[in-house]
Amino acid sequence: MKTRHYFDWAATAVPDTYPGGEIPFGNPSSAHREGRLAREALEGARLRCAGALGVPASQLYFTSGGSESNAIVLGSMLLRRGKPGLALSVLEHPSMREGGLTLSRLGVQVAWIGSERDGRVSPEGLARALGGLENPRLVSVMLVNNETGAVMDLPSLARAARETGPVHVHSDLVQALGKIPFELASLGADSASFSAHKIGGPRGVGLLWLKKPFEALISGSQERGLRPGTENVGGALAFASALEAHGGKAAADRYAPALGRFTTLIRGLRSMDRAFLIPGDRGEADGRFSPYILQCGFRGIPGEVMARVLDDRGFAVSTGSACSSSSQKRPVLDAMGLGEKESLEGIRISQGWATSGLDIEALLGAIEAILKRF
Amino acid sequence: MKTRHYFDWAATAVPDTYPGGEIPFGNPSSAHREGRLAREALEGARLRCAGALGVPASQLYFTSGGSESNAIVLGSMLLRRGKPGLALSVLEHPSMREGGLTLSRLGVQVAWIGSERDGRVSPEGLARALGGLENPRLVSVMLVNNETGAVMDLPSLARAARETGPVHVHSDLVQALGKIPFELASLGADSASFSAHKIGGPRGVGLLWLKKPFEALISGSQERGLRPGTENVGGALAFASALEAHGGKAAADRYAPALGRFTTLIRGLRSMDRAFLIPGDRGEADGRFSPYILQCGFRGIPGEVMARVLDDRGFAVSTGSACSSSSQKRPVLDAMGLGEKESLEGIRISQGWATSGLDIEALLGAIEAILKRF
Repeated sequence: MKTRHYFDWAATAVPDTYPGGEIPFGNPSSAHREGRLAREALEGARLRCAGALGVPASQLYFTSGGSESNAIVLGSMLLRRGKPGLALSVLEHPSMREGGLTLSRLGVQVAWIGSERDGRVSPEGLARALGGLENPRLVSVMLVNNETGAVMDLPSLARAARETGPVHVHSDLVQALGKIPFELASLGADSASFSAHKIGGPRGVGLLWLKKPFEALISGSQERGLRPGTENVGGALAFASALEAHGGKAAADRYAPALGRFTTLIRGLRSMDRAFLIPGDRGEADGRFSPYILQCGFRGIPGEVMARVLDDRGFAVSTGSACSSSSQKRPVLDAMGLGEKESLEGIRISQGWATSGLDIEALLGAIEAILKRF
Repeated sequence: MKTRHYFDWAATAVPDTYPGGEIPFGNPSSAHREGRLAREALEGARLRCAGALGVPASQLYFTSGGSESNAIVLGSMLLRRGKPGLALSVLEHPSMREGGLTLSRLGVQVAWIGSERDGRVSPEGLARALGGLENPRLVSVMLVNNETGAVMDLPSLARAARETGPVHVHSDLVQALGKIPFELASLGADSASFSAHKIGGPRGVGLLWLKKPFEALISGSQERGLRPGTENVGGALAFASALEAHGGKAAADRYAPALGRFTTLIRGLRSMDRAFLIPGDRGEADGRFSPYILQCGFRGIPGEVMARVLDDRGFAVSTGSACSSSSQKRPVLDAMGLGEKESLEGIRISQGWATSGLDIEALLGAIEAILKRF
């Protein structure tokens, strides 16, 4: 290859080291050879993601993560004429919930969709919330809740939403990707958010699926006008690889083994006097819940204490969402009608593709030992 | 080490492969051991960045890039009471310029600070713009322009801004970092934006320096409430390494050699009949400009053509900013008073630490050969 003389350092510097080696370093928006190679790589990554998700590449936008994908959808509301209305579930990820609160300060009418006792949203609850809006424009309901694993019936919810008029249906699919088999184009949604690092990819990369483009609040010339910022080519390629390794087919193949391990876990917990599941009627092979996330509690032991003691014994579990860990509140559990005491006793156990049956047995053994001492 | 049983996959998955190997994979917001290790690494990276920039770590926030850092500062205006006023220079990066246009649609009063003929902003021009605002709250002037390399006299501009009242002064330092020696705390600014990939670090990581915290439009529990999204620990560590390798002292040591190479370049261009510098009176060792970015043109050859022909011969140069390459317009050059024809003849030549004198000689030779043929 002919020697290149790179004089576009203002577009991007030649990196000192770059993971993967084969990632073209150019700025995908540059017209020169380095830029075109980067653009090809970026669009190649987009095509691979589109293939894994079963949607056209033109509907996928790379972002800095699931939270930004959510923020782009919320932010677009500020550019709608009139006083736009937003209905979102009380179960949403903090990035949606807090975004909704901010929008309500800025003139957007916000209606909250309540939770049923099982931690799911019903079409009736959604219709009620939408009915309270003067000019409903956006509905947001996540597919899998990040604290309880509750799986929403998104197709029914989307249908109920559209019966009220032409409303955009957004869904946060961060906890669904690589876990719950789904057909993106058949969920009834108009947009969806994904995060690479929840499926083994790198931090700082997300995807927004958008059936039809809209005007973004923080626009830019990148990603077809949807956001500013030099495209993260390496991150996009890594996300594509993670999606191919853990999305679609892999998720489907792993579903039954995951359900098997969680059945063992739930049986074990049910055999312990002080243990309770959240919600209490969660079954062993219960289609209402993802077999990757379980919320449970132990009477008399605050969740934070249980998590700390388990941590000391070599088990990493959490209370609530990592994204709101600085707060003691458990808004999702509160919304399900749990009392304050039970809410604060909740811990989240979540598994992945590398979790084994032995891990589950060890966890159950550790919990039993702790319950004897506390 | 005791075997760990990781049950917080919903917070973050165990990555398949992760660059660097030593980067803790946990979610820094998780309370367990994996989370604490990630938190330590993140805060270690922040301390190293703070050391390199000479400011307290508590004033630094990791973002997804320079454009997001700019957007956070702009977005905060929407939460100010009354009708807040924003003055920003017409020379700003597209992420600021387009953000300013959006804010003006959302009730923020926006005044544009004009450019002098040399591509810089004057204290008088700034005062004029601020004078037109009812309730001035924010001023934004970049330190080094990304198209011409013009270096603004930020301390004087900040002083002029403060004479009008208590106004927040923001500066985009993306093209200054690693190029122009500066003392962040002495620039007179209240906040500043940085990007890792412009100094050899990875894509998708930026920094926002904020003297005093403020309420962000898209808030979250991460980065002390300034933004949502799981922290990019690997990116933060890589940014810290790039800053230590190319920021502060390294930039100061490389300034004179860079100036020497650009002196050769400018002399060579001045010896060519059809070449012109932008602005025309840019000198060889002219303190008004960064010795890393040069804008010039060749009479009778559109910049796009020149860039393409150079590209074919192995030289990567650009027209305009990579971040607005989809548009043919050259707002920065227009603002400097250049005619449309000259604007469209402009190309940007920018160098970095790996550029050699031989690269400069080769570029001059190629340009001469092209001028003979076209």
